[in-house]
Amino acid sequence: MSEQSPNAVSNWGRWGATDERGTLNLLTPALVQRAAGLVKTGKVYSLSMPLEAEGPQWPSRHKTWRVTTFRNPPAERGSADDVVSMHSHSGTHMDALCHIWYDNQLYNGYSMPEHVTSTGATRNSIDNVPFIVGRGLLLDIATWKGVDHLELGEAITAADLDACAAAQGVTVQAGDLILLRTGWMHIFHSDRSLYNQGEPGIDVSTIPWLKAHDIVAVCADNQAIEVFSEMPPPQLPVHAAAIRDLGVYLVENLNLDALAADKVYECLLVIAPLPLTGGIGSPVNPIALA
Amino acid sequence: MSEQSPNAVSNWGRWGATDERGTLNLLTPALVQRAAGLVKTGKVYSLSMPLEAEGPQWPSRHKTWRVTTFRNPPAERGSADDVVSMHSHSGTHMDALCHIWYDNQLYNGYSMPEHVTSTGATRNSIDNVPFIVGRGLLLDIATWKGVDHLELGEAITAADLDACAAAQGVTVQAGDLILLRTGWMHIFHSDRSLYNQGEPGIDVSTIPWLKAHDIVAVCADNQAIEVFSEMPPPQLPVHAAAIRDLGVYLVENLNLDALAADKVYECLLVIAPLPLTGGIGSPVNPIALA
Amino acid sequence: MSEQSPNAVSNWGRWGATDERGTLNLLTPALVQRAAGLVKTGKVYSLSMPLEAEGPQWPSRHKTWRVTTFRNPPAERGSADDVVSMHSHSGTHMDALCHIWYDNQLYNGYSMPEHVTSTGATRNSIDNVPFIVGRGLLLDIATWKGVDHLELGEAITAADLDACAAAQGVTVQAGDLILLRTGWMHIFHSDRSLYNQGEPGIDVSTIPWLKAHDIVAVCADNQAIEVFSEMPPPQLPVHAAAIRDLGVYLVENLNLDALAADKVYECLLVIAPLPLTGGIGSPVNPIALA
Amino acid sequence: MSEQSPNAVSNWGRWGATDERGTLNLLTPALVQRAAGLVKTGKVYSLSMPLEAEGPQWPSRHKTWRVTTFRNPPAERGSADDVVSMHSHSGTHMDALCHIWYDNQLYNGYSMPEHVTSTGATRNSIDNVPFIVGRGLLLDIATWKGVDHLELGEAITAADLDACAAAQGVTVQAGDLILLRTGWMHIFHSDRSLYNQGEPGIDVSTIPWLKAHDIVAVCADNQAIEVFSEMPPPQLPVHAAAIRDLGVYLVENLNLDALAADKVYECLLVIAPLPLTGGIGSPVNPIALA
Repeated sequence: MSEQSPNAVSNWGRWGATDERGTLNLLTPALVQRAAGLVKTGKVYSLSMPLEAEGPQWPSRHKTWRVTTFRNPPAERGSADDVVSMHSHSGTHMDALCHIWYDNQLYNGYSMPEHVTSTGATRNSIDNVPFIVGRGLLLDIATWKGVDHLELGEAITAADLDACAAAQGVTVQAGDLILLRTGWMHIFHSDRSLYNQGEPGIDVSTIPWLKAHDIVAVCADNQAIEVFSEMPPPQLPVHAAAIRDLGVYLVENLNLDALAADKVYECLLVIAPLPLTGGIGSPVNPIALA
Repeated sequence: MSEQSPNAVSNWGRWGATDERGTLNLLTPALVQRAAGLVKTGKVYSLSMPLEAEGPQWPSRHKTWRVTTFRNPPAERGSADDVVSMHSHSGTHMDALCHIWYDNQLYNGYSMPEHVTSTGATRNSIDNVPFIVGRGLLLDIATWKGVDHLELGEAITAADLDACAAAQGVTVQAGDLILLRTGWMHIFHSDRSLYNQGEPGIDVSTIPWLKAHDIVAVCADNQAIEVFSEMPPPQLPVHAAAIRDLGVYLVENLNLDALAADKVYECLLVIAPLPLTGGIGSPVNPIALA
Repeated sequence: MSEQSPNAVSNWGRWGATDERGTLNLLTPALVQRAAGLVKTGKVYSLSMPLEAEGPQWPSRHKTWRVTTFRNPPAERGSADDVVSMHSHSGTHMDALCHIWYDNQLYNGYSMPEHVTSTGATRNSIDNVPFIVGRGLLLDIATWKGVDHLELGEAITAADLDACAAAQGVTVQAGDLILLRTGWMHIFHSDRSLYNQGEPGIDVSTIPWLKAHDIVAVCADNQAIEVFSEMPPPQLPVHAAAIRDLGVYLVENLNLDALAADKVYECLLVIAPLPLTGGIGSPVNPIALA
Repeated sequence: MSEQSPNAVSNWGRWGATDERGTLNLLTPALVQRAAGLVKTGKVYSLSMPLEAEGPQWPSRHKTWRVTTFRNPPAERGSADDVVSMHSHSGTHMDALCHIWYDNQLYNGYSMPEHVTSTGATRNSIDNVPFIVGRGLLLDIATWKGVDHLELGEAITAADLDACAAAQGVTVQAGDLILLRTGWMHIFHSDRSLYNQGEPGIDVSTIPWLKAHDIVAVCADNQAIEVFSEMPPPQLPVHAAAIRDLGVYLVENLNLDALAADKVYECLLVIAPLPLTGGIGSPVNPIALA
């Protein structure tokens, strides 16, 4: 049930009236094969933050809970297991395309009240995302600006993205998975109170840029990709535009320090959400191969 | 605290007295870079089964629970999230090296009572596994045997593994991640009662084979990798030997049908466990690039 | 913000425009003291069903989950604890007055969208119910009808309630907590498939009766107090009228067999919900003293 | 399998070699009927603290988690429910007799390794406690000592209990449920850091007193009934003696201020644990009728 989005920058209908996958449609085998060619040294990076009660988490959400159960019969084989209670949007995680809506419409015009209930989502859910695999492009804004981290409320514009890419000597390509480094994850460790007031991040000037460049995902080392300076933020316009209008994927709470230290600007990036049937998102452990 | 395992087939001490990573030590950048060269067409496969209450699960464990929460204020942006309660050993998942012990010792001689408690594990936990990346080698035993699936209690021996590889025209290499296809996952769908009685799988004759070939992981389309025919199984000797003695990783409940249909015998395989601090395992969504 | 309910049978405004407690307002100290006088022998009955995965539960809800954690250091004191994941509406439980609404209004006219969110309820929540204590009146419909249990879809009318009381030689009094026995809990054990198709229970003719008699609560040995014969029921009119219009409390999944066997028609009844801040209901273990 | 406890103060075997109920055996119908006679005014008190993430909780345990799910179809009846994840030992709660052991033995000599596993307890579990009903006896130590609250690490001795009772003009009776008021719950609100360092409470001199008086339960307004001054406490000797040796019930984190303000020294006390099959304890909302 695809309807014309009133918003000028939209991908609705681009991949058909019944599409639920959004920009995943751009990740062709040819693109993946080219990205695999970026693996030069075989060095592998995990880009996740620890998944634990004290890990990065939107402050109003419950903390991640894990307890361990075990059996240790004296003369036999013993074994252990865990029980985990968590929000799917916990720690390093990605949003499904049903995560955000306005005017009661999801990406590609689906009706929110019809398709999102306590049981889960019947359109645009995380199990429509078996994987996100492609060229990871690191835009290390913090290093480009010569700082340890950007400031609270500091906006990253489309012009900043271009300038940073140019400074790094890389070209943005269609199908890219942007790895955006603000340095803000350092504040998670050093000043939790400041961390929970907002963040630096991209602003709405990047929305046309995301569409023009056919970006598939934006993965950042902050809580919500976009800039805001009060908690809770009165609005998250980039979320609304990227997810709901463009069908672009957002992945939050990454740790990009190792990639940046090695100046790995291009990589084969593999993101593998848990196949939670009807789910609204998933914790992830993004893997970069360089 | 490394002690000589009484068992003849062991990797204890091989990577040092304080090693907690086991066979991950074999996944060198050179090996990863060679594996990336296996990506010929860019076709990508997710090898996971759905993660949901009705997904594959050891029958005595609680089912995976997901409920969705949402906010839909009439004139504003709405959003949703999930709350998930699950065992870390749920659906398609991998075991950490602290999952199994005997004689109160974990892999590499660590004391179980000292290191595994309700709070979690302080040695050999899943957060010691930032990723498993290497050459995935599909051994499609079912197709080799000309059947849809092996039978309950049917053992796969070391000789079978060699013969299957030969029949497929592939060579087992050090550092391989074996993708073992029994066809048993079909029974999960077609005969749940039979499925819960046991399974076909590898037997103890494969233990020296795993060591001799320096296999890093065995990933199978059954519940527990190894053969057994009563539930619960009185013992799981392959688990004990592979995990506790060899530091080999076991990944269970995969779906290998698509790989098998396309005869993808070699691939770049990426397994990215959730970084659950102190955890005993993790659900995973293994990704194969061919 | 109290508005006149369009429904003729209503308690809105009766206890003030800002009331959130509904019929609890009728449980005066005098009434409680009289009920305490009903304790003749000191025999005590727990009226709950087991709270466990296989206990009575609305079929579309996740089952109750409990795992036990423990510490058993060899030479020291050991201890254990549990982790429980459950719906508040699990097993024997009671509904808060915010559980049901229509026309976007809760009991006493409160706006549902304003007061019920994923965070919980800010009006009519379970923590407004520190206790329900009063005269428990057993109406053993099954025994009165000479059957082990009423039939699927069999309605209990206001006339039935009166006739049963008369046959038992008891008088309904203002402030009573009705203990309604249908025998349907036997079907939970003997025919789960039938049990999940619906139930016998009270019908809408009892709504004016509940108001006329100033009943505070209806506690029954079925899943939903009221009669229905398809799952899920297209509507639950007694829920809507009792909870939302009258501010009457519903308590479900009781076991009333022991009370009935001893012909305990009157008792001091104590129901103590868990004080879940903002909660929509609570598991309970109702205690009858005779 | 009852064995003679080496400890001199013990109730093992007193109610038979297979007893699992401990002092509940003392709550006879006659005792309950006498306690019902204590209801003079019909005023009812809930003695629980709020059950929520920020409620009283042993600091090393995960906080209580509740999220609300709901359905609000525009033209129909809407409803809500909660999902709760919690420790059974959360907020105001009681310990089952399997909660504590030493020398690998539970109350009445049962083997801990045999009877307590990750699945739960098969002896002395909370579902052996359908209710605790009897005479509640308030010993308001804080008021007797003329203070708002006792100090961190301040011990309450057997002599103190006797003196307080005398000062209040009450007599301790066999089968009593002691309501012990230290005032320490005020510190939960006013100085959380101090609160988490330990508490005032009873010391081991009260163990023979508990047995001599045939006390069934001790319910206190602190975290662990007994005195300690470091967190975590190296031992909890009152827990070990009361629960494991005497089969006495401990109920923690009560709010006794209202009872104390009204000088309600005697009451009918009703404690109704959730019937968690195999559970190690339960949150409770104790109800006092005066």
